[in-house]
Amino acid sequence: MNKVAITQLGEPRYTSPIDVIGEEEFYTPSVVQWPAHGNPPDQLFFERAGPRRKLFFDPKDTRAAIVTCGGLCPGLNNVIRSVTRQLMRGYGVKSVLGIRGGYRGLDPARGNPPLELTDDIVEYIHEDGGTLLGTSRGPVDVCEAVKFLISRGVNMLFTVGGDGTQRGGNALFEEAQKQGHALAVVGIPKTIDNDVQYVSRTFGYGTAVEAAVRVIHSAHTEARSVDNGVSVVKLMGRHAGFIAAAATVASQDVNFCLIPEVPFKLEGKGGLLAALEARLGWKNHAVLVVAEGAGQDLLGATGEKDASGNTKLQDIGVYLRDKINAHFKARNIEMVMRYFDPSYQIRACAANTEDALLCDRMGRHAVHAAMAGKTGLVISFLHGQYVHVPISEIARSSKRVNLEGELWRAVISSTGQPGEFR
Amino acid sequence: MNKVAITQLGEPRYTSPIDVIGEEEFYTPSVVQWPAHGNPPDQLFFERAGPRRKLFFDPKDTRAAIVTCGGLCPGLNNVIRSVTRQLMRGYGVKSVLGIRGGYRGLDPARGNPPLELTDDIVEYIHEDGGTLLGTSRGPVDVCEAVKFLISRGVNMLFTVGGDGTQRGGNALFEEAQKQGHALAVVGIPKTIDNDVQYVSRTFGYGTAVEAAVRVIHSAHTEARSVDNGVSVVKLMGRHAGFIAAAATVASQDVNFCLIPEVPFKLEGKGGLLAALEARLGWKNHAVLVVAEGAGQDLLGATGEKDASGNTKLQDIGVYLRDKINAHFKARNIEMVMRYFDPSYQIRACAANTEDALLCDRMGRHAVHAAMAGKTGLVISFLHGQYVHVPISEIARSSKRVNLEGELWRAVISSTGQPGEFR
Amino acid sequence: MNKVAITQLGEPRYTSPIDVIGEEEFYTPSVVQWPAHGNPPDQLFFERAGPRRKLFFDPKDTRAAIVTCGGLCPGLNNVIRSVTRQLMRGYGVKSVLGIRGGYRGLDPARGNPPLELTDDIVEYIHEDGGTLLGTSRGPVDVCEAVKFLISRGVNMLFTVGGDGTQRGGNALFEEAQKQGHALAVVGIPKTIDNDVQYVSRTFGYGTAVEAAVRVIHSAHTEARSVDNGVSVVKLMGRHAGFIAAAATVASQDVNFCLIPEVPFKLEGKGGLLAALEARLGWKNHAVLVVAEGAGQDLLGATGEKDASGNTKLQDIGVYLRDKINAHFKARNIEMVMRYFDPSYQIRACAANTEDALLCDRMGRHAVHAAMAGKTGLVISFLHGQYVHVPISEIARSSKRVNLEGELWRAVISSTGQPGEFR
Amino acid sequence: MNKVAITQLGEPRYTSPIDVIGEEEFYTPSVVQWPAHGNPPDQLFFERAGPRRKLFFDPKDTRAAIVTCGGLCPGLNNVIRSVTRQLMRGYGVKSVLGIRGGYRGLDPARGNPPLELTDDIVEYIHEDGGTLLGTSRGPVDVCEAVKFLISRGVNMLFTVGGDGTQRGGNALFEEAQKQGHALAVVGIPKTIDNDVQYVSRTFGYGTAVEAAVRVIHSAHTEARSVDNGVSVVKLMGRHAGFIAAAATVASQDVNFCLIPEVPFKLEGKGGLLAALEARLGWKNHAVLVVAEGAGQDLLGATGEKDASGNTKLQDIGVYLRDKINAHFKARNIEMVMRYFDPSYQIRACAANTEDALLCDRMGRHAVHAAMAGKTGLVISFLHGQYVHVPISEIARSSKRVNLEGELWRAVISSTGQPGEFR
Repeated sequence: MNKVAITQLGEPRYTSPIDVIGEEEFYTPSVVQWPAHGNPPDQLFFERAGPRRKLFFDPKDTRAAIVTCGGLCPGLNNVIRSVTRQLMRGYGVKSVLGIRGGYRGLDPARGNPPLELTDDIVEYIHEDGGTLLGTSRGPVDVCEAVKFLISRGVNMLFTVGGDGTQRGGNALFEEAQKQGHALAVVGIPKTIDNDVQYVSRTFGYGTAVEAAVRVIHSAHTEARSVDNGVSVVKLMGRHAGFIAAAATVASQDVNFCLIPEVPFKLEGKGGLLAALEARLGWKNHAVLVVAEGAGQDLLGATGEKDASGNTKLQDIGVYLRDKINAHFKARNIEMVMRYFDPSYQIRACAANTEDALLCDRMGRHAVHAAMAGKTGLVISFLHGQYVHVPISEIARSSKRVNLEGELWRAVISSTGQPGEFR
Repeated sequence: MNKVAITQLGEPRYTSPIDVIGEEEFYTPSVVQWPAHGNPPDQLFFERAGPRRKLFFDPKDTRAAIVTCGGLCPGLNNVIRSVTRQLMRGYGVKSVLGIRGGYRGLDPARGNPPLELTDDIVEYIHEDGGTLLGTSRGPVDVCEAVKFLISRGVNMLFTVGGDGTQRGGNALFEEAQKQGHALAVVGIPKTIDNDVQYVSRTFGYGTAVEAAVRVIHSAHTEARSVDNGVSVVKLMGRHAGFIAAAATVASQDVNFCLIPEVPFKLEGKGGLLAALEARLGWKNHAVLVVAEGAGQDLLGATGEKDASGNTKLQDIGVYLRDKINAHFKARNIEMVMRYFDPSYQIRACAANTEDALLCDRMGRHAVHAAMAGKTGLVISFLHGQYVHVPISEIARSSKRVNLEGELWRAVISSTGQPGEFR
Repeated sequence: MNKVAITQLGEPRYTSPIDVIGEEEFYTPSVVQWPAHGNPPDQLFFERAGPRRKLFFDPKDTRAAIVTCGGLCPGLNNVIRSVTRQLMRGYGVKSVLGIRGGYRGLDPARGNPPLELTDDIVEYIHEDGGTLLGTSRGPVDVCEAVKFLISRGVNMLFTVGGDGTQRGGNALFEEAQKQGHALAVVGIPKTIDNDVQYVSRTFGYGTAVEAAVRVIHSAHTEARSVDNGVSVVKLMGRHAGFIAAAATVASQDVNFCLIPEVPFKLEGKGGLLAALEARLGWKNHAVLVVAEGAGQDLLGATGEKDASGNTKLQDIGVYLRDKINAHFKARNIEMVMRYFDPSYQIRACAANTEDALLCDRMGRHAVHAAMAGKTGLVISFLHGQYVHVPISEIARSSKRVNLEGELWRAVISSTGQPGEFR
Repeated sequence: MNKVAITQLGEPRYTSPIDVIGEEEFYTPSVVQWPAHGNPPDQLFFERAGPRRKLFFDPKDTRAAIVTCGGLCPGLNNVIRSVTRQLMRGYGVKSVLGIRGGYRGLDPARGNPPLELTDDIVEYIHEDGGTLLGTSRGPVDVCEAVKFLISRGVNMLFTVGGDGTQRGGNALFEEAQKQGHALAVVGIPKTIDNDVQYVSRTFGYGTAVEAAVRVIHSAHTEARSVDNGVSVVKLMGRHAGFIAAAATVASQDVNFCLIPEVPFKLEGKGGLLAALEARLGWKNHAVLVVAEGAGQDLLGATGEKDASGNTKLQDIGVYLRDKINAHFKARNIEMVMRYFDPSYQIRACAANTEDALLCDRMGRHAVHAAMAGKTGLVISFLHGQYVHVPISEIARSSKRVNLEGELWRAVISSTGQPGEFR
């Protein structure tokens, strides 16, 4: 048994005003059981998220802050709203600061002053995409930021962002301890790519798949309205092809799905171009979906990084478009190419129903954890339950599409594509 | 260890043409772990769904049939399509019969002859709500139906429907055995209410929640556009309030959510009417969502049943509307009532992206099970995995909203309503 | 030539800050030309709406107010926003009051105080249905209201509402004149039914048709998924069947469309029930759309009126549902009835693109007219142009579906129904 | 008086089976009246579209064909369906051929054989974007095509396409006359750009505006979620900016709208870049919409043409994106650029409600005209009426956004942009 510890700022002393959970429930990250062997010895167990009996912070003396970082993702406003509502209406906290423009807003020299969030300000923000607070990429001077938080009397910080943001949050907690300030830092993991370890599903991912399906539908319509129509749709997915794969299965309109996890070659008998040509011979049109991180080996990536520390990707979509055009031109086969690159459209959408449900829970559980004095963790949705995962644990690795699992099998079934292009 | 057995028609002998799963994986219905006690001794383990190495039926001699029964549910056409595609393209089965008009279509004296399904017929049906095959309520003469299936050379029957349908499917399998015919019957559980035991989520449920949220949004707009506006929205949910609860949380617009699992009283200090009146005093408008099965005790249910064997419900929506109107009239408080009853609109929608993903897997896994000669089971989506559940097991009880669980807690948080009206 | 005069508060003296129109253009309400006879002698010509060279009100001394009355209609918030934006950003007016809760808000004894509208308040309201300002039915004490407007220094009032609202607006203008206050009253006609004379199209109507088509789509899916399925959809349309007719043609799913303009009988050889029975014999399912004002003669209307002065209608939808059920029961024909009553859902929708375009123009033209000192008029969209129509002119009669015109002919073509049920 | 003549194949002799119109109604293309001068002497009058009393073709001997050409446009399937339905159900015509792949399908040496259209085939096609029949660019050998039509016994051809298609249709009619075959050719003008002379509105245009508004909404969300966010959205509009202008007004989110009718400069005090910089200083974000044909003078167009004879445009969107990036980089102002190019997504959408209404009328009126033996015309929607316009008349010029008219004024009001960038 391997109970995953969560850092606690100190002994919680205040009785909670709200209905609490049983605190001794733990969840395992895998529900697969090998009954012959019992549970594997290194099985992890995560504690259940939810309201605790005892609070570490006295609500009437608590001031919270929330910050959204990195690229847009459907549901950011939903999280902001539920965090605010749970603090104010659930615990009676009087002040919630909205940090503006990402981590930059924690540095008075660089950012705008925070927005004092109220019930009225957040009332309808969940109906909109984007983030009320604004966002940016890149880190902040940890020392300046903690000084700023102390100067504003902030006891807890909610960080909505990706890997870098969560590691940054941890650094803030550690610096605050160094400066003698009890600051709870609780993360809500944000990645539209859905590639966080120990998280079944990140918010915004489902909305992105839905929006992607609509684009694929147009791509399919274009392709089948002409002779030898080929539509190429580039979707999000830097290291993991979850969006491309799920959109492929949900639409049932895709013939080739390319993801970072599955290298492919273009030329030769087993290559993609030959398979595409065969498809046109058979069905006269084709739809290709490609995750932005797929096939980077073909493009000779430079390793350059952006402000968030992400490797800059080469444009596989444009590359494929051009290679396909050249192939058919060389073989003197008339073909009509349509290229779709809808990522910014997709990520700016408002959260759909599923994500609205996720975000509400994410936000409220983050508040429960912080009020109890927990820190250095993110809220995770794991197999239908919400649990606490230490930032150290999720930072260790990231999630990939399992090529033996349900999703990729479904891609193979619905596209009819071969397992690999080799 | 308690491995749940699945009935097998006989030893599978034919090598499968498609990529198979590891067959020795089992899943547990609960991912909650009590590490102090180990797994509970009566813990169930369900076998993983997916393609098997050996088939019981030789694809080239196989004829399948599929039938949809009971009320409409988003995703029926998706299931029909994926079953057909997996049989034809995945296994090379030559003939798939679409039984028309529910079980009635298995009785030549009562129904229309089956539709021979083809690749072309099913190509775009997943874009539409309803069912290509038609549906009806009520059972069929088991003996006649089996004779009919034998006369048509049907080896496997896919039954898409609720409890009654699945029990009916089991009866067909047993009768076929009696008549010496190896008939695999595999169910895909269909209940928009999401109340099936050992199934995390049934198809159509998510689409229903999404459609319900749109109606609630209108209801909220109506209520807050006038002085003392009250909107009452009746939603599906005969015995379980999943749709009402999830739509409440996703919309964040609801002030009172009433479900079958939580009895309530109208009158008196702790009653719903007093709470509603207080809400109007505070906020000038209110939105109530009520599941159709809620508050049946208040109406004096008759116990009458419909053709599917479901107890006929009294109309709690109209009852609430009238009681609320009367209450405010008696107290001389001006109020504007808007009543919404959108169930037929909702259930006729096409499947959304999430349900499209579910339905595709449900349909294809049903085919894998049948080809391997398994019978008397339904396909279940359980904590992110697909498993086989014997019909006997799911028929034993049905699922309810857990009042200590995530969903109901979220309702309480987002509505701010008291735990009960007593 | 018959140039339609618009009342003018006095000589406009101030030079407009914005780009103006040619002021000597007039439009005719009918574009049908009988070249043999020249224009008919009583042909009306309406003056073109748009910014005038000279203003009657000095923007820096102007205070405006806007009020929304009666039932919800898609686009109310768009109108509020464009009126406010045009006043503030277009003319530099400093203060715009939002009257709350309809005309009631003009009486301090009955309503809430007005809301001072700002750029920020209105920024995103056009994305929502309903009305930011609230609404109510019924008139206001004209004398009190004018006193209130004078006390608040209001020079111009924008009235968004139906017939009663516009007549009420006229009364306010006349009372103000009596009290010696130059008050411009400019109306924006609001009727989701689209039945205003000399207005080609009222805002909200198109959105209503679009929302109705979605409901009809569900109704059609329900009907054709069962044996002898009959769906009855009741839509808006008190005196005119524009919504029912347009939704019928746009959906192409309707078999019978009943509107107030075409009386019908149920029983007998040429009656609706016989036609419906024939349809079921032929096609096994049917969709009926009925405008709420249709067939009132069959129900024996009482003549009772609501607070807006509208005759209370009997419920033709429920009547038809019950009569159809009874008919088939009496004839021992199994049939499945689904009834849809989506009016509140429809009218609470946000404006679609077409209506957004209409509302923006309506709002801005109303401001142009008021700034020039025009009063007692409404803004009308007539054959692609915006014109000024005196309230007296539109109050004289209301518009009906022309049974020889395009729309009704399209209904007959797309349903295949007979011209009448007699 | 200037009654516009429509070519007539010969004297209509057959009595029509359907309800007809008054045939002596004419419409004028302009509803603006200058009462001082009477109607201008060169005023055109177009005859009303609709069913005629006498038919030229005997329905029982009639075979029709329909062809869709050029780029996709929402509503193509609606037109195909309504033409087919009106022919078969309205007139009792037995055979309707769907020509495949555009004009190419009229040449047996190049295209696939036609599809015999039936009631069942067209039943639900209006729910999908694209065209059932396929499409292509480019002309056909007129002589071969007429031979093909004669060999198939085709009496009437419906051509759905742009300028080139309609001119091609006229050539087919003339060649058929030369070959002694009475062939009625009736066009339904198709241009998503809405730039056809004497047509108030072409089908697909409204749907395109609606789809564009959704993209602009995402663009706006992206821009305002970051510091100095700039979104550039390229929309359709080769010679006329109707889509860009209407989407700008409907969304109310656009700050700069650039169309082909208004030349602009980038650099200098009055240029676009300075205005954009000022906007960022004031509001921190900006949304630019640019029609694809705008600013071609800045790019040095080559004059190259595509298969449809359209001038190939340089990519103004990418040019603007790069120029803006360079400008702010040079001035050392941090800025976040998002670029959107959604044209293929937009044009593949299914028709919205407005367009569904238009397409149904367009298709049915085309049939009425052809049955009466009219030829060499297109169906036009003009100020709320449907009329016949000779192909020669629409080919003479094309429509542009009137810079003094409603739409462009609305753009100026809602964006607040200056009348020009000079």
